[in-house]
Amino acid sequence: MTHPLHPRIQLSKESIFSHMSRLAVQHGAINLGQGFPSNPPPAFLQEAARRAIGTVDQYTPPIGLPRLREAVAEDLGAAPEDVVITAGGTEALHALAESLYGPGDEVVMLEPYFDVYIPQARIAGAEPVMVPMRLTDRWEVDLPALERAITVRTQALLLTNPYNPTGSVFSRTEAEQIVALARQHDLWIISDEVYDELYFGPPPIRLRELAPERVFTVGSAGKRLEATGWRIGWIITPPGLAPQVAGMRQWSSFCSAAPLQAAVAEALPIARREGFYAQLRESYGRRKDLLEQGLRAMGLQTFAPAGSYFLTALLPELDAETLVREGGVAIIPGSAFYLQNPAPRGLVRFAFCKTEAEIEQALERLEGYLKKVHS
Amino acid sequence: MTHPLHPRIQLSKESIFSHMSRLAVQHGAINLGQGFPSNPPPAFLQEAARRAIGTVDQYTPPIGLPRLREAVAEDLGAAPEDVVITAGGTEALHALAESLYGPGDEVVMLEPYFDVYIPQARIAGAEPVMVPMRLTDRWEVDLPALERAITVRTQALLLTNPYNPTGSVFSRTEAEQIVALARQHDLWIISDEVYDELYFGPPPIRLRELAPERVFTVGSAGKRLEATGWRIGWIITPPGLAPQVAGMRQWSSFCSAAPLQAAVAEALPIARREGFYAQLRESYGRRKDLLEQGLRAMGLQTFAPAGSYFLTALLPELDAETLVREGGVAIIPGSAFYLQNPAPRGLVRFAFCKTEAEIEQALERLEGYLKKVHS
Ligand SMILES: Cc1ncc(COP(=O)(O)O)c(C=O)c1O
Ligand SMILES: Cc1ncc(COP(=O)(O)O)c(C=O)c1O
Repeated sequence: MTHPLHPRIQLSKESIFSHMSRLAVQHGAINLGQGFPSNPPPAFLQEAARRAIGTVDQYTPPIGLPRLREAVAEDLGAAPEDVVITAGGTEALHALAESLYGPGDEVVMLEPYFDVYIPQARIAGAEPVMVPMRLTDRWEVDLPALERAITVRTQALLLTNPYNPTGSVFSRTEAEQIVALARQHDLWIISDEVYDELYFGPPPIRLRELAPERVFTVGSAGKRLEATGWRIGWIITPPGLAPQVAGMRQWSSFCSAAPLQAAVAEALPIARREGFYAQLRESYGRRKDLLEQGLRAMGLQTFAPAGSYFLTALLPELDAETLVREGGVAIIPGSAFYLQNPAPRGLVRFAFCKTEAEIEQALERLEGYLKKVHS
Repeated sequence: MTHPLHPRIQLSKESIFSHMSRLAVQHGAINLGQGFPSNPPPAFLQEAARRAIGTVDQYTPPIGLPRLREAVAEDLGAAPEDVVITAGGTEALHALAESLYGPGDEVVMLEPYFDVYIPQARIAGAEPVMVPMRLTDRWEVDLPALERAITVRTQALLLTNPYNPTGSVFSRTEAEQIVALARQHDLWIISDEVYDELYFGPPPIRLRELAPERVFTVGSAGKRLEATGWRIGWIITPPGLAPQVAGMRQWSSFCSAAPLQAAVAEALPIARREGFYAQLRESYGRRKDLLEQGLRAMGLQTFAPAGSYFLTALLPELDAETLVREGGVAIIPGSAFYLQNPAPRGLVRFAFCKTEAEIEQALERLEGYLKKVHS
């Protein structure tokens, strides 16, 4: 026998998303669990990548290919100097955890939370402090609870907008109150906006616009351009901090895939100019409605998403592990998004970034399964 | 003014390689500094990538696309279950640092060292302990010094073979003695073998074959297939440890670029079958000889590389910063590879993964510059 691994390895368990995807494949289930799209990336992105292969193949600067930093800046109304390109939103969040907090520090997050937030905070040595969202007929920020959670140890607020898994977006009042709190206590804000172009009402507020001096915005080409496996993401930093954050990310993956950086640089202005995101919203909106109406028709309570490609609902009698095995539908149990507070009873998350046919078939299977269980 | 960043940010300074590449561009210098090839990746790899775009575009499991794990295993004579795919050798080393050591631990390395080793150890909270290589007319491991460096806090030996920057490879005796030391003190070995197919004599020893129970092998498609910007690397773990290591890397970049994983999976058996690596060695060998002979003809002392695409030499009167600005040639000063011990006086590193024309021109410029300085 050799040496044990470092105790930190306890953070390494398989994510619920990978776990459910694996079970889905194993049991021939329809996968409304993990959030990857059924569609391929748009043709203009694919073609740009095929052209970049063979021409942009060697290391780029860790901070990113200059033309991609410019394209991201242009798209988001930021300065190119404040853009850091990363290996997806995941690495953006990892680099920020390493740049902003360490042992003895606390980072305040809302619950339900996206899974990478907790291990990333702990790897950096910090303690996550979780503030539950209020769930009535919709998801709302509990501002007094958020304020109570802030201590002298708090370094940052880590927020998601649009929000996975709730599908909610901050109201202007919520956003302004959160920013005021951060100002008052001099906290950084990490604003995870990977679903920024996926909304079904007014465009979500960009927290950076309310407090450019303290907000780090995280984005992802994977979510916007239906290429989750390409691993191109970004950070917009407060002015002057990009080189330092890039200096940290160079030690995790050095730089993002060079030809795919070049392709995204070419695709971002095309997507904007040709109305790709509006089409995306329309197409996801149809699938959202299909899923929502189907679940409601079964008498289930759903919480209308204002953004992201996720929908939460209450299915109190259901166990997600049994459903994927016996009912042939993979979804994510709400408990997977809670660390310190209990999940609302029966909470589950559906991903609707799948084809209409898949969603229809999943609804049929779910209905049949619920009938069987109830009879 | 807001909050300071975490003090860890002091690890984020621009690497000497990026710095020199930037200066090279700025001053129109020939870049024999950073180790990225002048050649594009082979056509069979490019074509495989163009085909994968549009078909393998979404998240893969963090541990890697199954077919790539199989291709790496087949190529290296390992079991597919023991392979973890990473975003380059860099992320492989990062994931191993996080998996193997933490605060209070020590990791023993040889000096000169490859730059990412130090910040990665420190980010994990561990202290690097550096043992200088002995430099006579060649680079040799100082085994007694290595043994003296091991304490009860030592968790791992971190070694490079073939070795950047020295270009040396371990003799069988050195390899066996190192492994015996690791066995005696029950240490992990991280064997950074990203240059495994780049050698100019007998094939380098694979440490894993001497101690499969304790060696983690790090590899890189970027180095083998001249695609350093694609960010596909791997780890071969001791039996049974791959899921845990993959569980750690999922929090840094989640998975490697999916279409490029698919392309490398297709290319690895082609490269082996069609003798691509032998051609690569021949082509690099020619460039090595050209550089070596050129430097010797100027009366400089060089240390013949047995592997990698780097060559070390002594240029005592030369400052690398001045050379790139005034002489138009970028190289890396030896001091960049030393942390705790003094670098041999005048040590510099040349990369010869450039075209013969570039090497010839660099030699001319260097000769002119040295003459000017000496006159
Ligand atoms: C809220 C949130 N943040 C970040 C990510 C990671 O994005 P990426 O795939 O770009 O790493 C996801 C992916 O599901 C997410 O839901
Ligand atoms: C010794 C050594 N290890 C690891 C790496 C990183 O390899 P990759 O580009 O696959 O991240 C390099 C790159 O120069 C290297 O020289």
